[in-house]
Amino acid sequence: MKKINLQEKFTLFSEYWTPKVIGELNGQQVKIAKVKGEFVWHDHATEDELFMVIKGQLKIKLEDKEIELTEGEVFIVPKGVQHKPIAEEECWILLFEPKQIKHTGEVKDAKTVDVSEWI
Amino acid sequence: MKKINLQEKFTLFSEYWTPKVIGELNGQQVKIAKVKGEFVWHDHATEDELFMVIKGQLKIKLEDKEIELTEGEVFIVPKGVQHKPIAEEECWILLFEPKQIKHTGEVKDAKTVDVSEWI
Repeated sequence: MKKINLQEKFTLFSEYWTPKVIGELNGQQVKIAKVKGEFVWHDHATEDELFMVIKGQLKIKLEDKEIELTEGEVFIVPKGVQHKPIAEEECWILLFEPKQIKHTGEVKDAKTVDVSEWI
Repeated sequence: MKKINLQEKFTLFSEYWTPKVIGELNGQQVKIAKVKGEFVWHDHATEDELFMVIKGQLKIKLEDKEIELTEGEVFIVPKGVQHKPIAEEECWILLFEPKQIKHTGEVKDAKTVDVSEWI
């Protein structure tokens, strides 16, 4: 029952591609992440995933197109859709997704974090 | 499978307290609303509700305290918690909540909209 200030939360960590949980509701979690570089191709078989850009630019590669997001833009990747997030420069994103989701789907990669920590 | 630009979506309507759906995922909806003035006291018996301020200031009165949110701040109202949103000046908010939620809970009021429209 406390408010969450996004800018403050982003000052609490610096590592890339490790989503931090900032809120939970209705079995879903709100997470934030700093990203830079290329993430792995993956999908989530049973979960849709929302990306919102808070700062910077994010590219989401899909099999047949590329979505370019800037601050204040949102994209929902439907379940089962292969995607690969890329950020040329550091980018801050907010994610909204089911609590049990794995951020690299079934792909195991050096970037895989099994359980996101709260921040 | 299209990106959503929040600023653009907010230019598409002007009425207050009538959330518009901009996205859907995992049985949840993402909505935006322009608000000004006082909303009714209400709760949602079975749904948690997330408020994010996109522009302006929002006050959320709870039974025992008041939360003041400004741009980039988020508050989650747990299910069953009575709350009353208030905005002294026009404020733009984003909501995350289950698809079936009624925005005034079980309270019927002049502001009640039974089904939110997509925008």
